[in-house]
Amino acid sequence: MKTGALKNAGLSELGKRTAPPPISWLMKMALDRPQLISLAAGFTDNASLPVRETSELLQEILSSENLARATLQYGSTAGDDRLRRLSMERLRKLDGKAGETSRCGPENLLITHGSQQLLYLVTECLCDPGDIVLVEDPTYFVYLSILQSHGVRCRGIPVQAGGIDIAALERRLEELKRSGELKRVKLLYLVTYFQNPTGITTEFERKRSALELLRSYEKAAGHPIYLLEDAAYRELRFEGEEVPSGLTVKGADERVIYTGTYSKPFATGIRTGYGWIPEPLFTIVSRVKGNHDFGTSNLLQQVLARALESGKYEAHLPVLQRRYHGKGKAMQEGIKAHFPPGVRWEKPRGGLYVWAALPKGMKSGPKSALFQRALSREVLYVPGELCYAEDPTRAPGRNEMRLSFGSASESDIREGMARLGAVIAGK
Amino acid sequence: MKTGALKNAGLSELGKRTAPPPISWLMKMALDRPQLISLAAGFTDNASLPVRETSELLQEILSSENLARATLQYGSTAGDDRLRRLSMERLRKLDGKAGETSRCGPENLLITHGSQQLLYLVTECLCDPGDIVLVEDPTYFVYLSILQSHGVRCRGIPVQAGGIDIAALERRLEELKRSGELKRVKLLYLVTYFQNPTGITTEFERKRSALELLRSYEKAAGHPIYLLEDAAYRELRFEGEEVPSGLTVKGADERVIYTGTYSKPFATGIRTGYGWIPEPLFTIVSRVKGNHDFGTSNLLQQVLARALESGKYEAHLPVLQRRYHGKGKAMQEGIKAHFPPGVRWEKPRGGLYVWAALPKGMKSGPKSALFQRALSREVLYVPGELCYAEDPTRAPGRNEMRLSFGSASESDIREGMARLGAVIAGK
Repeated sequence: MKTGALKNAGLSELGKRTAPPPISWLMKMALDRPQLISLAAGFTDNASLPVRETSELLQEILSSENLARATLQYGSTAGDDRLRRLSMERLRKLDGKAGETSRCGPENLLITHGSQQLLYLVTECLCDPGDIVLVEDPTYFVYLSILQSHGVRCRGIPVQAGGIDIAALERRLEELKRSGELKRVKLLYLVTYFQNPTGITTEFERKRSALELLRSYEKAAGHPIYLLEDAAYRELRFEGEEVPSGLTVKGADERVIYTGTYSKPFATGIRTGYGWIPEPLFTIVSRVKGNHDFGTSNLLQQVLARALESGKYEAHLPVLQRRYHGKGKAMQEGIKAHFPPGVRWEKPRGGLYVWAALPKGMKSGPKSALFQRALSREVLYVPGELCYAEDPTRAPGRNEMRLSFGSASESDIREGMARLGAVIAGK
Repeated sequence: MKTGALKNAGLSELGKRTAPPPISWLMKMALDRPQLISLAAGFTDNASLPVRETSELLQEILSSENLARATLQYGSTAGDDRLRRLSMERLRKLDGKAGETSRCGPENLLITHGSQQLLYLVTECLCDPGDIVLVEDPTYFVYLSILQSHGVRCRGIPVQAGGIDIAALERRLEELKRSGELKRVKLLYLVTYFQNPTGITTEFERKRSALELLRSYEKAAGHPIYLLEDAAYRELRFEGEEVPSGLTVKGADERVIYTGTYSKPFATGIRTGYGWIPEPLFTIVSRVKGNHDFGTSNLLQQVLARALESGKYEAHLPVLQRRYHGKGKAMQEGIKAHFPPGVRWEKPRGGLYVWAALPKGMKSGPKSALFQRALSREVLYVPGELCYAEDPTRAPGRNEMRLSFGSASESDIREGMARLGAVIAGK
């Protein structure tokens, strides 16, 4: 048979569009230089992974012949009913008093292969090329890759100390209405707890205001504008009060898509998340999930259902939270000790990240002298500009960095921050 | 906040298009009637699931602190390097002598959340709405759902005893060339081993001929036309010789996408598959996999890597094959004993299915008297017409049924076949 490539690879529009992930080169860099201290990786803390718990849970499951067989067999597309119920109960518990009157039930809860899969499913079921998604400025960059791949346009809304700037959201919606583009707006994506990358938590009142605003523009849009609430870091809280989810806003159960995960608060290797989705979207997303994989691995689901039911999940959380608290503190101390004055940052209260804004004019991008100097001193950060959507209507931040205290050890964090501080101070 | 549904749900074109899965009502029926004997389910045999093996493997993994932590942490998007290497070696071994000169390496092998996910990824990276995929007549109905969801048009090529009818494939390609639609043809999808639903295995010579034919039409198409070889049932062989994969056809490594799975030959609850994909498609599919879930659960991958490396995987296969052999035999005996003459069927040599063609004119569809009578006798089959693509250029079969010996017990198979035979014979 004759071989030889044709010029046209026959890709779909999605295939042609999909760009390389913005941080693949960062990951490769970290792999190629084992001596590098990476404050860039979004990995979780290794030392606190629930090895004993997982081992006990698996032993329980596999020592009962019947349970073992059910676990090693296919499940259903929407997920294990017990895990769906337990996830709903967990969500209610987190929402506390505000969740008591919630009409959200487990029948609209979908178990997914990480909450990332839910973000993908929702986006492909709602967005066509040219549609618009409102995102935080800055936001989670892998979600930006999903949007880029689907040809979705982004519009950024600045994030402040308590969450997105509601006035800016209103101005943005008004502009889009005036330009006739409101009918292309499908959703507002918010990472509401200890946001990736800024660490900021959205106040409850801002969720309510955002939902009201979105609702008030729906008539002009001609269709629902959903709030996609990504709560991936919610249970990694080590300071401050719990904030109820957007699902507890009255009537919001028709417009809020809520995604949670067990990957980060339990084990990232047990890659399982979930989402609560209003109808009719739930039905559509479930069908597409059926096409993706007709259901998440039953083995993973059974481990998590037992972890939740036995109390092992909840008992493990404080262990994790203490670890991150300690590592977050080490990072703060590093900033205080080594970063020059003029660097702005927020004290972390949960999650995995600190966001540092350098003095204006000091560039932090991948091609900046700063990034190169950091690299030559064997320390890596995520340049802040990678966390900004492509939005031609505003300039992205160029002087920021995302610093992760997730996977690096406390001593590496201390050393890494000292190196980075010296680089920023120009020493 | 005011609630109330808008008429337009704001769905994407994909969201609007995606139809309910054709067998969801069959599955619901089986769930609602526990006394029903289901010869419809595509589930695997419960009794031979590798409970002891999985338990031992997990114990090994979790008793080493370092290995346990690596296992419970994120992995990389393409999958665990060891599992990729072992999967490539496994594939080489199955391909035997024919695979010795293969240029396919593990660098183009992607680990996925079941081989279903690979089918999804490949389709979304190659196909736009209106594109054409050539499928077997009949074929795997969940793949048809993926195509339907993506707005892809199907053209059916009849399956014979040794695989697709090559002359019919050529006629089809010629027609498409003449009608100017060849440039929309992206791939030929074949389930090459113990096909779902017919049980038929594609002869090696037919793979070679199909590849040559596709290649000869590429210039007119203006892009590669891939052969997507779905080998999900390959290792469930209990009779006959091994057939090399399409990857062993010389030069085919540029045009064959091969998908394999560990779900069916090991445990469906450990939902992991893989695919070998030529460049540049591999790069694109990997990026989209990153957007789906940035990599399959590490825990599942480590179990399989150890199963392969330790020999437990290979040692378990004969257990499974013996089970299916026995159950397949029970089904054949059921046909011989109870089905009236005039029913055509092929002896199963592997996989999970027997395909039975009733005398012409005897309808088997969901609304047929036959299906309803079977149901009233508490026995369920998959109406053959659900396995035919929507292809306006030919009429689908209306008189066939897919019978599964995968999940039902041997005694249920015997009883189910007796009931079904009586129904067909009009008793």
